[in-house]
Formats: sequence, C-alpha cells, structure tokens
Amino acid sequence: MIKNLFLYNSLIGEKVKFEPIASNNVGIYVCGPTVYSEVHLGNCRTFISFDVIVRYLKFLGYNVRYVRNITDAGHLENDADFGEDKISKKAKIEQLEPMEIVQKYTLDFHNVMSLFNTLPPSIEPTATGHIIEQIEMIKSIIKNGYAYEVNGSVYFDVKKYINDGYQYGKLSGRDIDELISGSRDLQGQQEKKNPSDFALWKNASKQHIMKWPSPWGTGFPGWHLECSAMGAKYLGDQIDIHGGGMDLKFPHHECEIAQGVSANNVDPVKYWMHANMLTLNGKRMSKSTGNTLLPEEIFSGENEILKKAFSPLVVRFFMLQAHYRSVLDFSSVALSASEKGFNKLMEAKKVLSNVKFVQKNINTELDSQIVNLIEACYKHMNDDFNTPQTIATLFELVSIVNTCNNANSFGEISKETFIYLQKTMNGFILDVLGLDNLDSQSNDKSAQLVELMLSIRNEAKNNKNYALSDQIRNQLNEIGITIKDGKEGTTYSIT
Amino acid sequence: MIKNLFLYNSLIGEKVKFEPIASNNVGIYVCGPTVYSEVHLGNCRTFISFDVIVRYLKFLGYNVRYVRNITDAGHLENDADFGEDKISKKAKIEQLEPMEIVQKYTLDFHNVMSLFNTLPPSIEPTATGHIIEQIEMIKSIIKNGYAYEVNGSVYFDVKKYINDGYQYGKLSGRDIDELISGSRDLQGQQEKKNPSDFALWKNASKQHIMKWPSPWGTGFPGWHLECSAMGAKYLGDQIDIHGGGMDLKFPHHECEIAQGVSANNVDPVKYWMHANMLTLNGKRMSKSTGNTLLPEEIFSGENEILKKAFSPLVVRFFMLQAHYRSVLDFSSVALSASEKGFNKLMEAKKVLSNVKFVQKNINTELDSQIVNLIEACYKHMNDDFNTPQTIATLFELVSIVNTCNNANSFGEISKETFIYLQKTMNGFILDVLGLDNLDSQSNDKSAQLVELMLSIRNEAKNNKNYALSDQIRNQLNEIGITIKDGKEGTTYSIT
Repeated sequence: MIKNLFLYNSLIGEKVKFEPIASNNVGIYVCGPTVYSEVHLGNCRTFISFDVIVRYLKFLGYNVRYVRNITDAGHLENDADFGEDKISKKAKIEQLEPMEIVQKYTLDFHNVMSLFNTLPPSIEPTATGHIIEQIEMIKSIIKNGYAYEVNGSVYFDVKKYINDGYQYGKLSGRDIDELISGSRDLQGQQEKKNPSDFALWKNASKQHIMKWPSPWGTGFPGWHLECSAMGAKYLGDQIDIHGGGMDLKFPHHECEIAQGVSANNVDPVKYWMHANMLTLNGKRMSKSTGNTLLPEEIFSGENEILKKAFSPLVVRFFMLQAHYRSVLDFSSVALSASEKGFNKLMEAKKVLSNVKFVQKNINTELDSQIVNLIEACYKHMNDDFNTPQTIATLFELVSIVNTCNNANSFGEISKETFIYLQKTMNGFILDVLGLDNLDSQSNDKSAQLVELMLSIRNEAKNNKNYALSDQIRNQLNEIGITIKDGKEGTTYSIT
Repeated sequence: MIKNLFLYNSLIGEKVKFEPIASNNVGIYVCGPTVYSEVHLGNCRTFISFDVIVRYLKFLGYNVRYVRNITDAGHLENDADFGEDKISKKAKIEQLEPMEIVQKYTLDFHNVMSLFNTLPPSIEPTATGHIIEQIEMIKSIIKNGYAYEVNGSVYFDVKKYINDGYQYGKLSGRDIDELISGSRDLQGQQEKKNPSDFALWKNASKQHIMKWPSPWGTGFPGWHLECSAMGAKYLGDQIDIHGGGMDLKFPHHECEIAQGVSANNVDPVKYWMHANMLTLNGKRMSKSTGNTLLPEEIFSGENEILKKAFSPLVVRFFMLQAHYRSVLDFSSVALSASEKGFNKLMEAKKVLSNVKFVQKNINTELDSQIVNLIEACYKHMNDDFNTPQTIATLFELVSIVNTCNNANSFGEISKETFIYLQKTMNGFILDVLGLDNLDSQSNDKSAQLVELMLSIRNEAKNNKNYALSDQIRNQLNEIGITIKDGKEGTTYSIT
C-alpha cells in the first residue's frame, strides 16, 4: 500500500508528509504517567489520542515500536515522623517504600488503559530502571561541555548551549533572553550559574528515599532526563515521533531537545506531536486545582456532574469525536450525545456483519458513492489523524447501510465493493478507532438476555398477562436489574 | 488474634513456629518468572502456592510486603544474521530489542496470574531495573574478600567462603568437597579459580545485546545476584520468608545465601520455603524436554491429553487439593474430579449466603461440632499451610450445611455460631484459597438470567403454554444459548 500520511509537526507548526527514518519501521515515544496517584481523565485523553495514532500507523502497514514510559522516580521524602534517625533503627520492612506506591498506581493505570481498549506499548520502561543510562547520558553532556557539577548536582548550561548557536525554546516558542533574565531564583537554586539552567542530577538530602550512587555522589536524576535516555536506548538517538500532552512542551520537551542535541549531536526527534487538553467546565483538568474527574467516576456515574454512568468505550468514542489537537470540553450532555452515536455505529456494524449479499442490478452511482466514502476514511486519517471527520464519514456509510438494507439483504452494489465496505467498516471501527473489545462482548450476552426478558414481558403485557409481566419485573429486580417503563419504551440498569 | 503459625523451614528441614523479625510485619520474597517465553503450568503451581501463603499471612492479620521479581536480564545474543557489524550500520529501530520480548511475556504472565486469581505482589522489581544495586553488592563482596575479578568478570570465591567457616551447601545438602572437586570445567570457565565458583558479573561479548557499564567493564550481572540485591533493597538484609520452586534450591538459593552472608554479614533469610513440582505423566514439567502444558491449553481444552476445557479456578482448586510440598501429578481425570468438588463447594457457599437464620432449639452437639470444624480450618492452615486438609474440613462443613438446610432456613445452632460459620466459609473460600473472582461474578449475571428464563419456561410448560416455552427455547438459541431437557431437569450451554 502506498502511504500518504501527513501529520502536524509541533516543532515547525506545519502539517508535513510523514517519512520514517528507517524505511518501513516507525519508532514512537510517548511520555507516560507519573504513578504516584490515580490517572485522571485528562491524562487518559492523551494516551487514547496516541493509541489511535499507533493503531493507524500499524493499520497502514508500518512496523511500529511504541515506547511509553512509567515515571516512577519521584521525590518522596520521609516526613518528620519518619526521620532518618528513627528509620535507621527500624527494620526495612517497617519503612515507607515508594515502590509499593508505584506498583499500586501502575496496576491502576494498566487497568484503566485496558478498559479504554488501548494497546499496551511494545516497551514500557521505568525511570528507576534506567539510572545507569541516565548517568551515562549526563557524562556525555558534561564531556561535550554543556553541563557542570556543583555540590553533588549537575545542571544543564542553557547559556552555553545558546551561545553555541543552538535554539533553546524552538519547540515552545519561548523567548530565550526572557527565559534567561526573567526566571526567578527558587529556593536552593542559587548554586546554578543561571536561573534557566535545569537539573540533570540532584544531590539527595538525607530525607530522600529514592537515591542512587553516581560519579557526583548519591542523588537522583532530573525529571527531563529519563525520556531522553530511554528514548535513545530503545529507539535510537533520533526518534521518528515523540508525543505527549500539550503541557509537556515546556520545559519537559524543550529540555529533551537540548539534552539530545548536546549528548548525541543530533536533533533527538523528527516529528513532535502534542495532544490537546480535556477541560472540565471550560478549565484545564488538573490534580492540583481539584478540577478533575477520575475514569472510575464516569464508569460508575458517581460524580455530581454526571446524570448517569457511561461505559469506557463511549468515553473513548466521545474523545475521538474531537481532533487530538483541539481542546475538548467534558460534559454529561455531550457524553450522552456520544452514547447515542456510539450505539448507532455499533448497531450498523452488526447489521453489516450479518447482512446477506444477494446480487441485484448494480446501482453504479451508489457503488461509486460508497467507494468514495471508504477512500475518504483513509483521506481523513491521513490528514493528521482526523478522527472526527473519519467518524462523520463512517456515519454517512451507516446511513447508506441502513437505507439499502432490505430485510437483511444487500445487493445494489458489486460484490467487490460490498466486501471492501465490510472490511473498511470493521477495520476503522475495530482496528483504528478501537471501539470494541472482548469485555464488551461478554457484557453483550447479559444485555441480550435482558432484552429477551423484556420482549417476553412486553408480550405478556400486550396479552394482559400481568401476573407474568410483574413476575419478570420482580425476578429481574432480585438479581440486581432494575427496569423502568417510560414513554419511549422500557429501559433498565444493572447493578 | 493470637497467631500460632508453623511452617516448614527448608533450611533446617523442620516445621517451626513462625516469628517475624519485625513484630507484625512480614517480608516475603518469591523468585518470579523468566519472561522469555510463556509461563507453563508447573511455574503457575509455584506462584499459586505462594499466593495462598501470602493470603493466609494477611488473613491472620500480618502486615505483609510481598516482593516477586521479573527476571528480564537474559542472555540473548544476536545470531549470525544480525552480527554486530551489520547492526551498527542499521537504525536502532530495526534491531532485535529484548525488552519487546520482555514486555510481551510479562503481559502474558500477568494475564495468566490474574485468571488464576492470584494477588499482585506489593512490589514487582525487574533485574534490569536494579543493575546499580547489583553492582554495589558485588563491590561489597569484593571488599569483604569473597570475590575476585578476572578479564572483566567477577566470580564468587566459594573455597575462601568455606575456608572461613561458612557452609556452602547447607540449604541443598550438597557435599562441598564433591562440589569443589567434581565440577566439570565448562567452556570459557577456565578463568575461574575453582570450578564451583559462580559469576557475579560477566564480561559481555560483542554479540551480547543487554549489557551495562561497570567498574569491571561492560557486562551483565550473574543470575543469582538479582534476587539478593532486590530482596535486600525492599525487605532488608535479612528477609522473613524466601520462597521459590524446589528446583531453585541449588544453585540459585544456595548462592543467594553465600552472597547475602558475604555482602552483609548476616544470613539473608530466616525461613526458606520451597514449593514442589507439578508432574505430567509422572515426569517433571519442563520447557526444555517438551513435557509441558500451557495454562491456555487447559482453559481452551486444546491439548490431546485433555478430555475437555477447565476453568482457571478449577485448576487452582485442583492444585490446592495437594499440599504445596508434595509432588502433584496432572491428569484430565484428576482435574474432572476436582471440578465436581469445586462446584459442590461453590454451591454450598451460595446456599450458606442465601439461607435464612430462623432460631430453633439449639442442638448443642451440632453447634460444637461446627465450631470444632471451623477451628480445624485454622489448625490445618497453621500447620504449614495444609490446604488439602483445610479443603477436606470445608467439605465436612458443606455436608452439615446441606443436611441442616431445611427449605432454605437454618436454625439448630446459635446465631453466633451461624455467623461464625458464614464468615469462616467465606473467609477461607474467598480470601485464603482465592476461589472466586470478579470475572466469575460477571458470568454469574448471565447464568442468573438464563436460570430465570428457564424457570419462566418451566412454568409456561406446566401451564401448557407451549407457544411461550418454545419461543423462549428458540430465542435463547438465537443468541447462542442451547438448552437441553433431560430427566434431571433442563441444562444449558453458552457458546
């Protein structure tokens, strides 16, 4: 297949044709979660956006190596009650162990990602698992003259980097003179030559729990360094695609560029991609402000801003109805609309899978209309992964399927086009957009059974057999299924 | 609760009272899988054995930190076609990357462990993630005089260790003189002072992919070292319990003792525990001989030695019907018997959960019989985690429940005893033996719905409403549920 993918490179602010560094192989690195608390829905949007990007690259036939890290090297300190002296008298097993927290939230993250039907990365490296690689990278940067040691810490020398003609700020568009002159001196940072210098290695205080020996004494790596070191280790000194949330552009990704260039003398990333924010009440979702929503609150409906619970795949569909570079505002109303669309799409997919092809006279206009719409699905995805346009096109196909489906048979188009249509609908809905998984199929069985019960109950009501209809209602209720008769028919909820 | 747990310490070959090093805190380290291929059923038995041990320690009220490692530092070499020269000319992304294999089989392992309803460990450290800790431990051993460097490799000096009065071989009961004099010289091992010396660090050949810088040059750690380094890091220089498969006693665990003693001057483990083998056709299950069975082959029934598929919890139950220190032979017949027992136990649990307590005259003999059986459950688990005896006792309780259950009511014992009985059955079946999980509960919903449909159909048949009863049969059939009327009632299967 000839590939004709264009993507928006944040570095130059333009859509460009995607051409991998090494023929058909694509290396993609995405900044993963910090596993010291639960992942919120804003983080999930970023990971779902890049999941679709990885899925489409694979769908196009690229050989993809997808690396997403776990940031587990944190800055946990023992508090006063757990002071160093007290601890040294205690058995190790009685101490706070950060890696227990890491394990808890890594498991939580994996669980949420699996509910959202995202593919696991090819490699999921941890920051604490790559301390040596980070130390080696610092050594190279020092050797090349772009970092200096002071009091057991190592800082990147931003001024020297700029003076040598490199552009610090080129990704984020920040003004460097301002960065250099304007940065406030934060506490304990007086040892830096310049306020905009950033830490590659930090000397650890006694209270620090996570620390390692290094040529500069006991300490821990600076946060920006892990992605540079792990990206280079698994994807090479220059990576095809590096992605992350918009908020990581500065300082994180800007620092990654400076680290890569100064260590390996090559721009570390060919295409930078950034996913936009999910807002709540028009404001950025963020742990620190409390303006946040957890995935499980949506799946259970247990948050005052929600009218009901929504399934993970509906939330995924809702997110994909916006382009990854657009801000998306979360609301219960918008989610309800997405749920209707999602069900409609799934229903059409089912119809199309079950429909029988019975050749009739070919309606050539319809035939070419369908072929054009199929090609439009590719066209939209090739246009910087435009999922909302792709979904809109799939709905046009759904419309045609529903119109042409005549008592479960379909035949006004050529068999070739029919097969192409089935393949494309399944390919885009399942493989590219990732809108179905095994779990939902197992829930399907319960759903089908409930629907069956309700249809029998309906019939009983029509036959005025109220004893049976009441019996069904009560027995369903006993096993935790509540049914509600309304104007538009009977609905139910499973607890 | 006063704890009265006895366990078999492999080091001394005796059952002893368990007394943790640090009051109520228990540290337990279990050697985890090597993630270069799928985990076979023999490995699973070891992990299920220790899962029950951890569960019971928690059930008794201990504060447990459970560490199980992932062995991902392997010895993969590029083969001829991927020789070093060729590779250096290629982009990193085109190379074989061992960590992709690690990720694949780690995910597979986690999936299988979750199907078997084992609890995740508190910390799951990887060998590649702790190279620094291993290097530091080697430094200590060299400093203390028990290791030497030669040609970029470091070996443990077994003779020196023995000459200083330490017992190498005390865990495995091997004769040391024999070990020292009898070991064959393997290729490339001539550089060792003595054939029984083992590698702490190996100089890496050019073909080696996974290698790190060290004070002795580029190389990789010896296999025995990772568990010593990670155990000490997360559980202290002396660990309460160290477990693993029987086959790890020598050389792996024997070497761990020598490493711990010579680095930290303390016996690294208070209680050694070893789980026995699962055999197939009377022979040890092993990847290398091909005498092996994969978990998914049992879950799908796709292996010629099986008559049918078995669910993960039935396999778990089958394993727990043998004591962890006994050899257990796998067969389809034995598994079928376990399935019957499992279903009987689950049915009794359900009856006991749903039964109503209606106080009648108290049968004091029965009351004390039940109390005695409950106490026997604890007694058997306190006796070196004797799960087969515990299960046998649970069946005695099941028998009583089934006999005394009179039209879903129960009242010949005191309310206190009744509550104690419910709590104990649930506690041992769910928390200790781990014989139920969420997945089976979600399947439960479908099962409940089918049962409901069948009862409505039955009623319809009794009322000679054959139109409705046929309709239900046909509609169930349409969604993949086949029902079969027999002498003993109606059964069904879901496809």
